[in-house]
Amino acid sequence: MTTALCPGSFDPPTNGHIDVIGRSVSIFDEVIVAVIANPSKSPMFTNDERVEMLEGLFAKEPKVRVASFDGLLVDFAQSQGVDVIVKGLRAVSDFDYELQMAQMNHHLAAVETVFIPTSAEFGYLSSSLVKDVGRLGGLVDGLVPPLVAQLLKERWST
Amino acid sequence: MTTALCPGSFDPPTNGHIDVIGRSVSIFDEVIVAVIANPSKSPMFTNDERVEMLEGLFAKEPKVRVASFDGLLVDFAQSQGVDVIVKGLRAVSDFDYELQMAQMNHHLAAVETVFIPTSAEFGYLSSSLVKDVGRLGGLVDGLVPPLVAQLLKERWST
Amino acid sequence: MTTALCPGSFDPPTNGHIDVIGRSVSIFDEVIVAVIANPSKSPMFTNDERVEMLEGLFAKEPKVRVASFDGLLVDFAQSQGVDVIVKGLRAVSDFDYELQMAQMNHHLAAVETVFIPTSAEFGYLSSSLVKDVGRLGGLVDGLVPPLVAQLLKERWST
Amino acid sequence: MTTALCPGSFDPPTNGHIDVIGRSVSIFDEVIVAVIANPSKSPMFTNDERVEMLEGLFAKEPKVRVASFDGLLVDFAQSQGVDVIVKGLRAVSDFDYELQMAQMNHHLAAVETVFIPTSAEFGYLSSSLVKDVGRLGGLVDGLVPPLVAQLLKERWST
Amino acid sequence: MTTALCPGSFDPPTNGHIDVIGRSVSIFDEVIVAVIANPSKSPMFTNDERVEMLEGLFAKEPKVRVASFDGLLVDFAQSQGVDVIVKGLRAVSDFDYELQMAQMNHHLAAVETVFIPTSAEFGYLSSSLVKDVGRLGGLVDGLVPPLVAQLLKERWST
Amino acid sequence: MTTALCPGSFDPPTNGHIDVIGRSVSIFDEVIVAVIANPSKSPMFTNDERVEMLEGLFAKEPKVRVASFDGLLVDFAQSQGVDVIVKGLRAVSDFDYELQMAQMNHHLAAVETVFIPTSAEFGYLSSSLVKDVGRLGGLVDGLVPPLVAQLLKERWST
Repeated sequence: MTTALCPGSFDPPTNGHIDVIGRSVSIFDEVIVAVIANPSKSPMFTNDERVEMLEGLFAKEPKVRVASFDGLLVDFAQSQGVDVIVKGLRAVSDFDYELQMAQMNHHLAAVETVFIPTSAEFGYLSSSLVKDVGRLGGLVDGLVPPLVAQLLKERWST
Repeated sequence: MTTALCPGSFDPPTNGHIDVIGRSVSIFDEVIVAVIANPSKSPMFTNDERVEMLEGLFAKEPKVRVASFDGLLVDFAQSQGVDVIVKGLRAVSDFDYELQMAQMNHHLAAVETVFIPTSAEFGYLSSSLVKDVGRLGGLVDGLVPPLVAQLLKERWST
Repeated sequence: MTTALCPGSFDPPTNGHIDVIGRSVSIFDEVIVAVIANPSKSPMFTNDERVEMLEGLFAKEPKVRVASFDGLLVDFAQSQGVDVIVKGLRAVSDFDYELQMAQMNHHLAAVETVFIPTSAEFGYLSSSLVKDVGRLGGLVDGLVPPLVAQLLKERWST
Repeated sequence: MTTALCPGSFDPPTNGHIDVIGRSVSIFDEVIVAVIANPSKSPMFTNDERVEMLEGLFAKEPKVRVASFDGLLVDFAQSQGVDVIVKGLRAVSDFDYELQMAQMNHHLAAVETVFIPTSAEFGYLSSSLVKDVGRLGGLVDGLVPPLVAQLLKERWST
Repeated sequence: MTTALCPGSFDPPTNGHIDVIGRSVSIFDEVIVAVIANPSKSPMFTNDERVEMLEGLFAKEPKVRVASFDGLLVDFAQSQGVDVIVKGLRAVSDFDYELQMAQMNHHLAAVETVFIPTSAEFGYLSSSLVKDVGRLGGLVDGLVPPLVAQLLKERWST
Repeated sequence: MTTALCPGSFDPPTNGHIDVIGRSVSIFDEVIVAVIANPSKSPMFTNDERVEMLEGLFAKEPKVRVASFDGLLVDFAQSQGVDVIVKGLRAVSDFDYELQMAQMNHHLAAVETVFIPTSAEFGYLSSSLVKDVGRLGGLVDGLVPPLVAQLLKERWST
């Protein structure tokens, strides 16, 4: 049995995240989606809100478990008996950074990382770009799941 | 249970290949190492020789099975009940090409691909570079497993 | 009025080529699609066949004119009163090569080049990959226009 | 007739910007140079100052019109009847980011983007690097037009 | 005689820095290690502390001299009679940025820059990543020299 | 004293090669320009012709010595007491390949490699592109030194 860990800020989750998690589900036996609780980054949604959104999005997927952690990613991975960290890869600039992280994590705790290429159609998506678009009045439907689009609209309308 | 497929020409297998296969073994439940039987490419070692080398190298690893195929990779993957194709990733130029292949394979048969970053110390290794070095009289020890180094020396001395 | 030139081998035209030419049509006033007649490259389709395919594909698009040339691209561009050369850009490896060509063409004849990013969904397509897939028995529908798929099947069945 | 839009912060305009706008003028029938009025970014020059600089630089070029906008780029582009957005491309890291933006803009409003490679000699130029150099006492002549160099010197001497 | 300049923030020096400086020592006749005194960046270690660390690390290497500077790098290089600036190169994203800097420095003062590829095993190291790891409780041994690891632990324990 | 080695096929030498060798001369005490005698590659100019061209081009530069070698680059470098191999770097695709070679050479013989960024204006030049341009009737003046342009014209006119 293979347990995979999909870490991220998910502030908020985009269709690109959903795509990578969905692919992980089709490959691995169990998938832990782990929200990075980074209090210094002043996210748009609180840690609890992000966990809740992801739980809502994967409510019908028994292989997915949503969690949250602070501290080192490899420490959390080891505490959960994770076999592999999964990161989505969109572009070359992602690759450089993610390769650096993967090598550091391998150095720190011999935890393996695999990269899943995101669907071409979601290659241009990121949480921060979605927030930029919405803040300037653009429609975010099609970029994030309906549940997230709804929450974003409520947030911006206040 | 997750079955992974590691395809390649393996002409010959290098320490970089061994590294990626070894990482796959530590992640997945079963690993099929598949030699691409490409008769048009005039390899240094025959298809049978390459299969034999890999069987020798992983003789003590019960999770590994060595096979050979021609035709489309996705057809072979589906015939073997493979969950995921695994490709090693060394550099940005690898990434572009492998991403293209992964997207094509996903289009052809909805087979997923994951990338494993090779150990930094093997990032510069390729079968063709090993053959270039050996042909010009350089030592290939440390670049390929001892079994392969021995076979290369026999080949070059004839 | 702006006249754009879309050069290529088009051996055969793929849906990626159709996408870039279609985008050019939506931007520019006139689009010349120019088949590079490179006799040394032993293409799958003759120069005339490739011109004919493209004429068939754009028969209903009055802004498109199909031509063929040998010699330097910039010489042909100048003989046709072209304002700009248009090249599709799929990936970083494309970018390096195309930038080199654009700078050389600017040096040779002060002809400008612009790059159009291909649709994400066609980012993995190339004529040679399509031919590889078809040769190994894969379906090329969805990768090339129906007219081209038909011609490819006839060619492979003989 | 083809109308192109060259958006940017232009804080301040560099010789690289002038090069890309000049190439656009040689290709397209009309070129709108659009200053992004981003009040949150605390620019060195106000929105009006940047518009004024650009108007001064292209005073003798009847095909160029300078404007300013806030909100989404695609909304502004559509309000002006723009056929294509033009972005300069200097390096691979530019390419990744600009491709992401182009795909997002195509998603939001089916507005096309083309990339113009900057002259090799201006490949290293950016507004922020120019400001860094000047702040440390380096000469900015040759990096920005004389009019801009003059304004920079006045700003730093106060 | 060739004098090389290795500039950097060195906040703190990592094993990657030590590797590049050590390679420079094996190539050039004299190596000036120059700490960039950037007061606006709020470093973890003061300018003096960073100079002291580097002096301690290269105390037994007569070819190395440690210095500190503010202002333009090329001005400092020329004041010291430097023949060449040496920068380590880890990844493609480094390359783009460092190429831009090298071309700017060549424009400003005709000072040459060479790039030294870092050892593959240190390709994932950066001062900021080391600080991130340590701040989250990870071991930094093996990432920085023992002397630096000791200072980091003292800093974090206060 | 630092001795640098500039290896290459130089078939023929371009202004980009001249630029990199010239920069090496300004940095190092002695520069060996080494023609790779690769009989399997069917070059346009013989090994002797390429050596002769380079000797002509650097006749007045006492720090430059032209040589030729076959076999492994590192063996030749060591036989000549070379301190460092120098390679020009034009683009990201160069970087990947050259990094692989540098790491292999470091593995084989602990010979260091440094990269010199080529002048931006020569970034698009390569020997093979120059030959392509000339073969199709383009002017090669400005791309290669006059001496080489003359030899190319003689070759093509026969």
